Amino acid sequence: MFTLGVSDHIMIAHSFADPFFGPAQRLHGATYGVELTVQTAKLGPHHVVMDIGALRNVLRQVLATLDYMNLDEHAAFPNRTSTTERLAQYLAECIAPELERLPADAAPPRPAKLSVLLRESPVAWASYELALGAARGG
Amino acid sequence: MFTLGVSDHIMIAHSFADPFFGPAQRLHGATYGVELTVQTAKLGPHHVVMDIGALRNVLRQVLATLDYMNLDEHAAFPNRTSTTERLAQYLAECIAPELERLPADAAPPRPAKLSVLLRESPVAWASYELALGAARGG
Amino acid sequence: MFTLGVSDHIMIAHSFADPFFGPAQRLHGATYGVELTVQTAKLGPHHVVMDIGALRNVLRQVLATLDYMNLDEHAAFPNRTSTTERLAQYLAECIAPELERLPADAAPPRPAKLSVLLRESPVAWASYELALGAARGG
Amino acid sequence: MFTLGVSDHIMIAHSFADPFFGPAQRLHGATYGVELTVQTAKLGPHHVVMDIGALRNVLRQVLATLDYMNLDEHAAFPNRTSTTERLAQYLAECIAPELERLPADAAPPRPAKLSVLLRESPVAWASYELALGAARGG
Amino acid sequence: MFTLGVSDHIMIAHSFADPFFGPAQRLHGATYGVELTVQTAKLGPHHVVMDIGALRNVLRQVLATLDYMNLDEHAAFPNRTSTTERLAQYLAECIAPELERLPADAAPPRPAKLSVLLRESPVAWASYELALGAARGG
Amino acid sequence: MFTLGVSDHIMIAHSFADPFFGPAQRLHGATYGVELTVQTAKLGPHHVVMDIGALRNVLRQVLATLDYMNLDEHAAFPNRTSTTERLAQYLAECIAPELERLPADAAPPRPAKLSVLLRESPVAWASYELALGAARGG
Repeated sequence: MFTLGVSDHIMIAHSFADPFFGPAQRLHGATYGVELTVQTAKLGPHHVVMDIGALRNVLRQVLATLDYMNLDEHAAFPNRTSTTERLAQYLAECIAPELERLPADAAPPRPAKLSVLLRESPVAWASYELALGAARGG
Repeated sequence: MFTLGVSDHIMIAHSFADPFFGPAQRLHGATYGVELTVQTAKLGPHHVVMDIGALRNVLRQVLATLDYMNLDEHAAFPNRTSTTERLAQYLAECIAPELERLPADAAPPRPAKLSVLLRESPVAWASYELALGAARGG
Repeated sequence: MFTLGVSDHIMIAHSFADPFFGPAQRLHGATYGVELTVQTAKLGPHHVVMDIGALRNVLRQVLATLDYMNLDEHAAFPNRTSTTERLAQYLAECIAPELERLPADAAPPRPAKLSVLLRESPVAWASYELALGAARGG
Repeated sequence: MFTLGVSDHIMIAHSFADPFFGPAQRLHGATYGVELTVQTAKLGPHHVVMDIGALRNVLRQVLATLDYMNLDEHAAFPNRTSTTERLAQYLAECIAPELERLPADAAPPRPAKLSVLLRESPVAWASYELALGAARGG
Repeated sequence: MFTLGVSDHIMIAHSFADPFFGPAQRLHGATYGVELTVQTAKLGPHHVVMDIGALRNVLRQVLATLDYMNLDEHAAFPNRTSTTERLAQYLAECIAPELERLPADAAPPRPAKLSVLLRESPVAWASYELALGAARGG
Repeated sequence: MFTLGVSDHIMIAHSFADPFFGPAQRLHGATYGVELTVQTAKLGPHHVVMDIGALRNVLRQVLATLDYMNLDEHAAFPNRTSTTERLAQYLAECIAPELERLPADAAPPRPAKLSVLLRESPVAWASYELALGAARGG
């Protein structure tokens, strides 16, 4: 089992509508350290899970849709629900099709799994993991 | 698959009775960086695995039973057996029932897994993972 | 020369009015990792610069005035000028009098310097340093 | 499930023959932070997965065969294929037999898994995981 | 006193001619984590030491002259003398004129100091500090 | 101005006699991450502050006098006064003469300063700085 990981970060504002979140109902923000990993059972023709630079580019493109944003106004998080868990899920679900549309020799060999981990502070983080569509063999 | 993680630390003294441990048979100590993660297949009604603040509180309460202690005198580690692995297991087994007794909308949705990772130095760590009792549905 | 350091963090929203800041003119946010250090030439009667717990408490109290806030509405940063440098300066200038009003045997011996360093992302940080008022000898 | 982890590092030179790697076709190098973990379902007679010092020694011995080397000349990576993934696999496959030949009370109880994670920069890493031969019971 | 810091990294190959360096006489390599700080007594008109993005760009441009290189062939390090200290000095001396040629409202206010710190492994680092030319007032 | 830094760690037990320290009056312990830096105005004949391996060896030798010890019984900290500040001072004062007795071409060029920083937990640290004796020119 091989895993490749790359990291980046975003800076966003948000708040929560749900009284469950106490002071985080107020408009505040976060720097999210983002760790993206791709796991495969075997390597591709270039002896890698996929190219590190290409993976970093995919991550940056997807993160750019959130970076320097107020997530309270973002369609993906209706009713101010941009919890760290939902953010990780959103990012993973945006990244998966980007990886699936890569040319066969540049994409991670299937079957593959994807994980997005978000560090919201030095003492808290959350992640979401999904399987890449198994349609195209590795 | 979602994972939520929080961290804290404790400072303890201990020694090992077993000659297997060489110089660590002498009374010494450690700062343990503690990383607690909870893994669930789905999120609860508040779009989270559980509240970060509540999880940090549970961790702190359980850690308080060991913090600033000499573990050689602690009933959970008879015959001076407080290895990092046994400490991680002890903490996980103390934390699990605390999570299980949370109100349904505050607890992690079942099935859930729990992991406690202890960093004893910049170059060594150990962890223990267990499943939360599946009695109460998520 | 002795230095004592403690860390904590805050999560805030803000934006910048100045077009100089490009995309950061949009409302966004940050988790600031905060590192507070106090430097003295000698130690006090308890063989420390000052008590770690007391220093963490002072830091937390001052940070609580910013935590989970939208700094665009904070009086200390008129015209949306809450740059990392200004935040570090603001925090240092709030912390200094708190240290100066501590009882003599709990305060850092004079002369003393104070520094606040803010980590805004994995790749950027800023700090501000000032001297504690020298009125009371150490 | 228990996991024990230890870390170390190596400094190597290498290049890639495959045009896929762009500028990394040029001779360059890397410091690899190396994290070795061993996972077991139960602990051995000493209340540990295995001795931390022994695990660090095994890791150091295997790393010494690569440290301060030009991997372009290393037999394990023919045609300049020392990608981070292949390096992790090579190290894991060298470490596994070393653990398997340890005396029964010093080896990790079977079944056991082994993982080698290599951090090549602050923003990229890769790992390889394998199962230890199940021949000898734990 | 204000300080602004940014980080990046490079991956290089090199060796040392001097027998003083033992095994590092062999061709090997390193990932250098690079931390660049600029220190000023006051802030510029935008309430910052200088723009973080601009500082990161200067750092990247200068690092690009070394990244993915074999430093044994680099003119700045004759006779294979690219020690971490000499690398830090070289980078600082390349970065200083880049900062000095920035437009007045984009440059760090004078007087200013510059420091380049290079982390060569988890256990070793070196830095070099110099003063920016004081010709142009801040 | 050049700085060279190396790191290591120790694991010790201790307690404090002074009621000022609250729960830390109980026997507990710490892992101290230790960062040793040497600062010089110029480099020696080998283009370095001093050899990294030699500096790490000096640090290890001095740390070995405390590692896996109960500091309550150590002569350097009478009446249970082994605060982090006193530990940093003790280590710096032990390391200085070791550096001063190195052969001229292996020692840091004078004048030189030495700093020992101890990280006692993820949220607290202390350091002590002293000047190396200026008797021998660099």
